[in-house]
Amino acid sequence: MSKQYVYYFGGEKAEGKAQMKEILGGKGANLAEMTNLGIPVPPGFTISAEACDMYYKNNRSHSAEVKTQVMKNLALLEKEMGKTLGNPNDPLLVSVRSGAAVSMPGMMDTVLNLGMNAAAVAGIAKNTGNHRFAWDAYRRFIQMYGDVVMGVAHHDFEEALNAVKKSKGVENDVDLDAADLEKVVDGYMAVYEKSVGKSFPQDPKEQLWGAIDAVFGSWNNDRAIKYRNINKIGDLLGTAVTVQSMVFGNWSETSGTGVCFSRDPSTGENYFYGEYLMNAQGEDVVAGIRTPKPLTSLEDANADIYKQLFDVKERLENHYTDMQDMEFTIQDGVLFLLQTRNGKRTGKAAVKVAVDLVNEGMIDKETAVSRVTADQLDQLLHPMISPVLKKNLKVIAKGLEASPGAAVGKVVFTAEDAEAWVARGEKVVLVRRETSPEDIGGMHVAEGILTATGGMTSHAAVVARGMGTPCVAGCKAVVIDEKAKSFNVGGTVYKEGDFVSLDGSDGEVYAGAVELEQAEISGELNVLLSWADEIRHAAKREGIADGFMVRTNADLPEDARKAVEFGAEGIGLTRTEHMFFEESKLIPFRRMIVADSLDERLEALKPILELQIIDFRGIFEAMDGKPVTVRLLDPPLHEFVPHSEAEVRALAAELGKDADKLIKRVEGLQELNPMLGHRGCRLGITYPEVYNMQVEAIMKAAVAVAKNGVSVHPEIMIPLVGTTAELELLRANAQKVIDKVLSETDVKVEYLIGTMIEIPRAALTSNLIAPHADFYSFGTNDLTQMTFGYSRDDVGSFVPEYVEKKVLKDDPFQTLDTVGVGQLVEMGVAKGRSVKPMLKTGICGEHGGDPESIAFCYKAGLNYVSCSPYRVPIARLAAAQAVIAAK
Amino acid sequence: MSKQYVYYFGGEKAEGKAQMKEILGGKGANLAEMTNLGIPVPPGFTISAEACDMYYKNNRSHSAEVKTQVMKNLALLEKEMGKTLGNPNDPLLVSVRSGAAVSMPGMMDTVLNLGMNAAAVAGIAKNTGNHRFAWDAYRRFIQMYGDVVMGVAHHDFEEALNAVKKSKGVENDVDLDAADLEKVVDGYMAVYEKSVGKSFPQDPKEQLWGAIDAVFGSWNNDRAIKYRNINKIGDLLGTAVTVQSMVFGNWSETSGTGVCFSRDPSTGENYFYGEYLMNAQGEDVVAGIRTPKPLTSLEDANADIYKQLFDVKERLENHYTDMQDMEFTIQDGVLFLLQTRNGKRTGKAAVKVAVDLVNEGMIDKETAVSRVTADQLDQLLHPMISPVLKKNLKVIAKGLEASPGAAVGKVVFTAEDAEAWVARGEKVVLVRRETSPEDIGGMHVAEGILTATGGMTSHAAVVARGMGTPCVAGCKAVVIDEKAKSFNVGGTVYKEGDFVSLDGSDGEVYAGAVELEQAEISGELNVLLSWADEIRHAAKREGIADGFMVRTNADLPEDARKAVEFGAEGIGLTRTEHMFFEESKLIPFRRMIVADSLDERLEALKPILELQIIDFRGIFEAMDGKPVTVRLLDPPLHEFVPHSEAEVRALAAELGKDADKLIKRVEGLQELNPMLGHRGCRLGITYPEVYNMQVEAIMKAAVAVAKNGVSVHPEIMIPLVGTTAELELLRANAQKVIDKVLSETDVKVEYLIGTMIEIPRAALTSNLIAPHADFYSFGTNDLTQMTFGYSRDDVGSFVPEYVEKKVLKDDPFQTLDTVGVGQLVEMGVAKGRSVKPMLKTGICGEHGGDPESIAFCYKAGLNYVSCSPYRVPIARLAAAQAVIAAK
Repeated sequence: MSKQYVYYFGGEKAEGKAQMKEILGGKGANLAEMTNLGIPVPPGFTISAEACDMYYKNNRSHSAEVKTQVMKNLALLEKEMGKTLGNPNDPLLVSVRSGAAVSMPGMMDTVLNLGMNAAAVAGIAKNTGNHRFAWDAYRRFIQMYGDVVMGVAHHDFEEALNAVKKSKGVENDVDLDAADLEKVVDGYMAVYEKSVGKSFPQDPKEQLWGAIDAVFGSWNNDRAIKYRNINKIGDLLGTAVTVQSMVFGNWSETSGTGVCFSRDPSTGENYFYGEYLMNAQGEDVVAGIRTPKPLTSLEDANADIYKQLFDVKERLENHYTDMQDMEFTIQDGVLFLLQTRNGKRTGKAAVKVAVDLVNEGMIDKETAVSRVTADQLDQLLHPMISPVLKKNLKVIAKGLEASPGAAVGKVVFTAEDAEAWVARGEKVVLVRRETSPEDIGGMHVAEGILTATGGMTSHAAVVARGMGTPCVAGCKAVVIDEKAKSFNVGGTVYKEGDFVSLDGSDGEVYAGAVELEQAEISGELNVLLSWADEIRHAAKREGIADGFMVRTNADLPEDARKAVEFGAEGIGLTRTEHMFFEESKLIPFRRMIVADSLDERLEALKPILELQIIDFRGIFEAMDGKPVTVRLLDPPLHEFVPHSEAEVRALAAELGKDADKLIKRVEGLQELNPMLGHRGCRLGITYPEVYNMQVEAIMKAAVAVAKNGVSVHPEIMIPLVGTTAELELLRANAQKVIDKVLSETDVKVEYLIGTMIEIPRAALTSNLIAPHADFYSFGTNDLTQMTFGYSRDDVGSFVPEYVEKKVLKDDPFQTLDTVGVGQLVEMGVAKGRSVKPMLKTGICGEHGGDPESIAFCYKAGLNYVSCSPYRVPIARLAAAQAVIAAK
Repeated sequence: MSKQYVYYFGGEKAEGKAQMKEILGGKGANLAEMTNLGIPVPPGFTISAEACDMYYKNNRSHSAEVKTQVMKNLALLEKEMGKTLGNPNDPLLVSVRSGAAVSMPGMMDTVLNLGMNAAAVAGIAKNTGNHRFAWDAYRRFIQMYGDVVMGVAHHDFEEALNAVKKSKGVENDVDLDAADLEKVVDGYMAVYEKSVGKSFPQDPKEQLWGAIDAVFGSWNNDRAIKYRNINKIGDLLGTAVTVQSMVFGNWSETSGTGVCFSRDPSTGENYFYGEYLMNAQGEDVVAGIRTPKPLTSLEDANADIYKQLFDVKERLENHYTDMQDMEFTIQDGVLFLLQTRNGKRTGKAAVKVAVDLVNEGMIDKETAVSRVTADQLDQLLHPMISPVLKKNLKVIAKGLEASPGAAVGKVVFTAEDAEAWVARGEKVVLVRRETSPEDIGGMHVAEGILTATGGMTSHAAVVARGMGTPCVAGCKAVVIDEKAKSFNVGGTVYKEGDFVSLDGSDGEVYAGAVELEQAEISGELNVLLSWADEIRHAAKREGIADGFMVRTNADLPEDARKAVEFGAEGIGLTRTEHMFFEESKLIPFRRMIVADSLDERLEALKPILELQIIDFRGIFEAMDGKPVTVRLLDPPLHEFVPHSEAEVRALAAELGKDADKLIKRVEGLQELNPMLGHRGCRLGITYPEVYNMQVEAIMKAAVAVAKNGVSVHPEIMIPLVGTTAELELLRANAQKVIDKVLSETDVKVEYLIGTMIEIPRAALTSNLIAPHADFYSFGTNDLTQMTFGYSRDDVGSFVPEYVEKKVLKDDPFQTLDTVGVGQLVEMGVAKGRSVKPMLKTGICGEHGGDPESIAFCYKAGLNYVSCSPYRVPIARLAAAQAVIAAK
């Protein structure tokens, strides 16, 4: 038997099922599943994504097998419906829709009303007794087919339509009758013929193949590619195509169409949420042209249909054990479901739904933790406007709370401007009448989105929620003048470049830049994260200490405290150099750097020692018993001295030094490639007194804090080690200082001495280095720089192009390159543990807050990840997900 | 039985042998061997280097076992000699000498005449009937013991000696009689007592242990450590100590002492070469205080002794199958050998001796090839003064041809100055009355060495030959005024900083900086290298192409020709960027760089294409059939544009561009870490037209050359690849260009497309990259930079200190770090060959000319090394040695 490429659904039985998303797409698989569940679905068939893949491989043509199977299934459909395509008596009309395994809303093409032709109009008119409907359906089909399949300019069709309206002296489409619409069809035919060069196809099968080609082709249109890049969707075969018998929400006054969610996708409340329009087609709802009604009003309008829909919702949510996003159409009082899928939701909703479903006994904790993505959690950690501040703000306009979170930026009016302004460092709010899939790039970079029309399920709202970008939609008070690049609210004009602020959580818009404040963790989020912690802590690992911990990178006590609030279980990296940039330390530190002798240097270090003790005390107190990894001085010394001649002369005067000599000294510190220069432990070797001072400060601070009864666990970290001898020598130096400090007190302080693994050679020779290290912390920023030979400061000239051209899958500074850099991490761990089995290992590069990288770190056997305070909740979640995924 | 630490030799039988150098030192092992051969050697015993090791481990004290064994052997020696230490009637006198497994001439301490005390003087006087000799021996012993063992200032002894000479009114030591010398001894005793704080030890056993401690102690004196560092001598246990009965060259007029070589150590001629002094001790010869006589005159003076010595020489050379360096003493007409060892020799001598010994049937070719070191060969490749030029040069002075090769530099008078001047970039000639072991550092950095006194075996001569530094010794016309820092030759004064030139091959010294020319390969060297080639080419390797080839790095046709003369078998690296610095290409290239559009860039590339075709033709013609690897553009573009505002403005005028815009453009090219920036294949990705132009030029040049009947094998090399996609994409681009060029001609050209492996990630992911590469060339310069995280341009601030503190064994840019960087090379080869078993691999970093690194490359399975033209002969030799060593 030959391979199946086409799957039928209908007659209460389908060949596909929900698990077949990879080949049937989300839409096709769920239509099949609903059919099998006995939920009313118009019958049809789905051409698999494998056929799409083959279509591309076959130079955009279909195999004979696919053609045969499509025709066979079409015949089946005609038989079930009792109608045939193009039949002048009882024509079958179908929709042709895209559907990939991962939802890409609005990115690919759809053709409705397919099967319409001169003969079918008559048949439809006869069967419905509604000539106007028939001609309108034909008109719509010509326009859609012309646009989607043949690329005829939308504008040309509009002109032909307007010509008829003008000749009749009416303004709205609804004022056109059947005869008018017949004229419109004539006009459209002319437009089509002029643009395409041949007449509109009357053969429904030709139409069908044209539409199938168009949908397959839309898989690789620019916006679909861009969407997949932004959302990191790769490795899909292509899109499936679902051919389904049409049902019409605009059939009659007892017809309608709508979108509904089994719970509120914005807040997660367990509330049957949706919108609908009577006597309308689905595109009218999604496009935001007419403002739809809330679903609650359907109960009043048609209690029976509402009850049917409510029951379907209950069944589907229970079946899929997740919040559902459904499309329905009522044709002449009969309900049909056209789609169901797990609903996109805000971060807040994701957390609430996950926690509620556990409490309702529908899913377990691991499932709940797995359901919330890092991006969703990130939204909750976004800035907001404080309630106190809010009371005093003047609201200039109020729209729909389409995507939560607050945003501040300069007004721009096009997606291109948004991208351009952001590229040059501005923050923008994108203001549009309504957005369309072409705007995706600009929407992605904007701080916030404000639209004048459209509802909660409009393009802007759906996409913004998916991106976690704050959005206020349907804000009618905003009158946009695109030409003038300005908008008017109640007589006040806001121009391009003016600051506005908006709050997507309540739909409020404010003039100017409002102050934002950081989020806190509470309620369901706390519950979810506590489950995540349980899962992380319970992870059993053979030959490795159990659990998978989350630490933070913090240089200041206030950061440390914030991180602890967010759930940090220690500090993975305290960079001491930031401390030196404080006024009080910078001058003594500069005096140290330019010292002419060891004595002078030692003298200069004395006041710094005292100040560093205060720094470290603050951090130890904030961490109260949790381990604190302090990295000794890392950056090259020239970062601490001024470089212009005038500044150096001023410094010379301040230090009482000869200016000319000092200029030479400062010049001598310059380096051609400072990233590969005299820094890190290389400074510790050539200026041992600096590291000794830092170790002394750490230990004295620890002793002082311990005396006050605070438990303290300093972990001294020596950076940039590339050879065993470096660590051996510096460890011995540090040990001497530690022994001296501890010998002068009777307080006991437990401490560790370890190193960063951030030089490729250190990873390669980890078996030699490990005997001298109590712990490793992988510094994946520098490790990435050196493994790739990329300077973080200079990659702007080619890495974006690399990502675009797919030379790189991701920017390796954002997502750990597991193939190359990760190989060194694995090697570092494995070789280190080959000589020291329980060697403690962690990561403190910025990858420590990236979910993919966290998953890698867990698999690589690291004991902890460390990230910035605001990423700690995300790391807690991602760490738990890594543990679950590895099971 | 307890471990043996002391080995006796004497009575025609020795406990040791030549193969025991590791523990008996070269001297002790060869004394044992000579004893066993029946050659006259004064009996004695050797305390092993293991005892030295234990001495240090035991906190500078001897174990009871060592003490016991020394005393037992001393008793044996006393029995054989029929004398006892300190016996007033017939005292035994012994020498106590150092001797490590590797010769370290003059670096460690020696004590002679040990056993002398008040009682022994009487005995010696009685036995010899020579009171003066006895007192002189005592005097010498006190001075030497005081100096070497107790650190008494040499100068204080000199003062005491001068006081006696003054009171007697004589100037020379020889004018002092026994009574005078007794007074000198009294004076010395006072000096000793004052300096040491106790009287001179009269107990010979106390003297003996003092001397043994001093010799062991001298293993770790500063100059010995420095010598081992310079000569990369590591991993030795320590020094052995040989205690041997004294024989006296100053016993009588029929006594004498000398040094001889079985062949000329300077030229390698098979000629019994040596120097001696009658009635003198060995130190008189080595110190260069008296000028010794040539050995030939000994034949006239004492034919019998000469014949005995000649026979010994013949036997020893035949026995060791190598040129011998021997020390002998004649005591009262009886010949004793005190030392034999494989003689240090010049590069020229090394080659000639090795080839001659093969021709004489004494050794095989592999042994000959193994015997010549890279450093020796390097000497032969040193600059020389052309014979033509030489005829017209005015010789200001002539000395001994102590170490061959010509040198030019500024005059300095102390070793410290030499080091300081060289450190700041000067080239110097070190001018000394005579050199001493303390001068070793300055000698190492000097271009040449000129001494006023001393013979061919003086310290300066021996050390300079070992180092391959040109040296003219014993140049009596040079009168040095150290205080004034000048020297006078026949009334003309040359001051510090004046240029002088010298030719160590004929002893000539010239004023000013003479032009030097490069060496050529001929005669025995050619023979030796052809043997090396045979060995390399015959190397059979499982799963790898046979043989081990030597290529060169050459950017210009003249370099390529020179390299072929030197035996290069292809070009491993042609850097195209150097070509762009030529005037004719620089302006168009700059026009290309600052082009505002692709069209402008393509236009600018047109003239460059034509010029590059000429470049590549020249190289292909020079290499005539040998493979040529051309690396596409590598450095960042900012290296090609001027940076000062004035220069950029001038460039703008020349190119007809807006100056302010151009300034911005040039600024935009700057990078913080250019080594890790936008360069290599990253340029090829972002500016494909540049690489395409280069590929077109390579292929068009190849076609043009092929049309002229020249065989041509271009290998196109894409640099700085870090990801598979880079190579895949650029290879596809190149292939398109190649196909186009070849489609336009009927000439066939074989070509390869490969990549440099110089980014750690490339080595780590070599299994992914290899499918797209026809060959790999390991760029170990960049690979070292990135594996260590060192910028070659910036390591001056810490790498020297690292090497000194032994954090690094070697500068990794000179000798490949096999542990770290080498691991990546091995991984690159292994992973690459795991998917492409016969993948061609080579190295083109500067390590390709370093013998240790070459040995590593062979073991790692590389097919070739590539180095600069002048290193090619060394690489040929080292490659053969690698093949031999791996057998």
